Amino acid sequence: MSDSTPTPRPTLRLKPKVDAKRIRHGHPWVYLDDIVADRRSRAIAPGSLAVLEDADRVPLATVGVNMGSRIAARVLSLDPDAAIDGAWIAARLSTAVTHRDRLIGAPFYRLIHAEADGMPGVVIDRFGEAAVVQPNAAWADVLVEEIAAALSDLGIAHVLLNASGRARTTEGLSDETRWLRGGLDAAVAVPMNGATYMADLTGGQKTGLFFDQRPNHAFLAGLAKDATVLDVFSHVGGFGLAALAAGAVSALAVDGSAPALALAEEGASRMGRAEAFTTRKGDAFDVMTALGEDGMRFDIVVADPPAFAPAKPALTAGLRAYERVARLAAPLVASGGYLTLCSCSHAAELSKFRASCIRGIGRAGRTAQLIHTGFAGADHPVHPQLAESGYLKTLTFRLLD
Amino acid sequence: MSDSTPTPRPTLRLKPKVDAKRIRHGHPWVYLDDIVADRRSRAIAPGSLAVLEDADRVPLATVGVNMGSRIAARVLSLDPDAAIDGAWIAARLSTAVTHRDRLIGAPFYRLIHAEADGMPGVVIDRFGEAAVVQPNAAWADVLVEEIAAALSDLGIAHVLLNASGRARTTEGLSDETRWLRGGLDAAVAVPMNGATYMADLTGGQKTGLFFDQRPNHAFLAGLAKDATVLDVFSHVGGFGLAALAAGAVSALAVDGSAPALALAEEGASRMGRAEAFTTRKGDAFDVMTALGEDGMRFDIVVADPPAFAPAKPALTAGLRAYERVARLAAPLVASGGYLTLCSCSHAAELSKFRASCIRGIGRAGRTAQLIHTGFAGADHPVHPQLAESGYLKTLTFRLLD
Repeated sequence: MSDSTPTPRPTLRLKPKVDAKRIRHGHPWVYLDDIVADRRSRAIAPGSLAVLEDADRVPLATVGVNMGSRIAARVLSLDPDAAIDGAWIAARLSTAVTHRDRLIGAPFYRLIHAEADGMPGVVIDRFGEAAVVQPNAAWADVLVEEIAAALSDLGIAHVLLNASGRARTTEGLSDETRWLRGGLDAAVAVPMNGATYMADLTGGQKTGLFFDQRPNHAFLAGLAKDATVLDVFSHVGGFGLAALAAGAVSALAVDGSAPALALAEEGASRMGRAEAFTTRKGDAFDVMTALGEDGMRFDIVVADPPAFAPAKPALTAGLRAYERVARLAAPLVASGGYLTLCSCSHAAELSKFRASCIRGIGRAGRTAQLIHTGFAGADHPVHPQLAESGYLKTLTFRLLD
Repeated sequence: MSDSTPTPRPTLRLKPKVDAKRIRHGHPWVYLDDIVADRRSRAIAPGSLAVLEDADRVPLATVGVNMGSRIAARVLSLDPDAAIDGAWIAARLSTAVTHRDRLIGAPFYRLIHAEADGMPGVVIDRFGEAAVVQPNAAWADVLVEEIAAALSDLGIAHVLLNASGRARTTEGLSDETRWLRGGLDAAVAVPMNGATYMADLTGGQKTGLFFDQRPNHAFLAGLAKDATVLDVFSHVGGFGLAALAAGAVSALAVDGSAPALALAEEGASRMGRAEAFTTRKGDAFDVMTALGEDGMRFDIVVADPPAFAPAKPALTAGLRAYERVARLAAPLVASGGYLTLCSCSHAAELSKFRASCIRGIGRAGRTAQLIHTGFAGADHPVHPQLAESGYLKTLTFRLLD
């Protein structure tokens, strides 16, 4: 084949009874079960681009293929001939950056939130001049150099590939973490809601810092003046440091990870609030039980645990764990104080999570009103066809008795 | 009967198969169908206090009775002997004020939000030194003088009784609007999110101003710098004036009510932004259609219509109306701009309302991401046992094409 004749894209065809309207209306996923899986389609290398056709062979879209995944194809463009290259990536980054800059001001945010930002499976977090790329879909794995180049063109000098985690395992992709551009040894200081967070991009959990709680941190900070705060599952200090920045008198951070607590302390120190910040390493359930036995009370208690119900099989046990968190946390809240309970579990939908929290608070013998329901911030947009999939829910109750 | 022996409270008894646990766990409503409706109970005057008993005659709670309502009793206290008097009302107001003052700062807010604030059916909005009381339950109608006195004690000089509207009709209560304390002729200037709103307490819709959208106004204001804004169903200027306060270059307010638009203009004028604010009186659907035909585009479009689906029978037609709003509004949004769509319909739950909006945007041929889901502000708390009943939903989309 000569250089001037590009390889024609392979095709994937929908099964006869699969409705192509879903794709035409913008749904970004094509399930393996909906595709004619003949020998030819099964031979398409993971990450290849292909043309998706309806059952009558009418071209529908350009897709990225991974026949080893339940989501066998992800729609990259409704133009079946779209060039998926550096310019295409740059255009998507530019659209995303315009929104974040307007929304947030400082360049610390989730820059690309996968499907909703037109880059299915891809997550990019920005920490000023550094970015962390999670290419959790095969097509993006293949194009990761082009993604790094496009980020460089935006003035982002340090680009870390974080190719690990559950989302990749389900896609059958390998684990790998390395710098694609530049490189940073020290933790990055991240300004958010007036607080300073230390993000350790290579050693931390996930991308070193969770931007998703930003508006919920801000909501709680609005209640925090002169308050004492207990921040359980604190990670690098998310809620606690935001509360201190807003004038809380003290914050106690509880987490199982010593490195996370050390970063939280470093953040408090840089904020000049080290004197008001204490940490306690330990199992959150044990620590809450112990604080309860000591009769401790705080004006504000927050519990932002890891996903107890990441997927459906874990739902029942997960909801029980959320109820237990509520039951152990509620007694620690002063009369008239506030209790913030969070879930980042996909499988625990809002009404179920809320019911678990309410049951736990009730079992603790407390009377409450629900004053706030928050989701992930606006730098975590949701694809309209995947709107049911919002994962983060943050409830704030006021305890009346 | 002598003065020293108070009339014993009448009793209401739950039917044998009705589970009393619901009440013990804090549910504030007792349905007529769940009560033994004998001649004695049917004779209880609307607004009377009574003791609710389980089927075994064990006292459960002090309730306010209205045998003419589907909700025949509302739980005022789990203490069957609780005194429901001025001191009881003052304690509830005090608990509520503490929270609002911490949350909001300036005394302009919903002060009592019914069940969640421990005063079933009662809504009180505060406008500085004035308050508007909606006693939408018979027990509160009887105690309205005590409520006015307790508000006076908080330094609120002007207390308006607004005893009108649908909530009262379903309770079988009469219509009446009069000053219980003081009296104001002029509209009140209300500061919110840096904007100034004019609230006409006696002439306006409902209580003259809706406080519930405060956080959603604030979210949109965060996107509004240098933007052109179209505010459809503007009422007294809710979203448009908040956007101007945050640096929008212009706002066009559309509403069917000339008095509402006049108040909006007065607000813009007091903010010193009259030059940037224009109004258009007319049917919102007609005006959106006309603007679309003229090819008009705005950086931000908001539509905050009245409840299209206040109750279940209106749900299908209501959802169709929300879809139509989205379909007419989406073409008016500039590429990369924002579209905020609101519903204050109890019957249109979040997922249904969201689906209608997404369908309307799709029918307009636009591609969107959902960046924000907001509810009523934290001065509108939700009772844990009535958490499904949240009425206000505000969705903000970014249009990508």
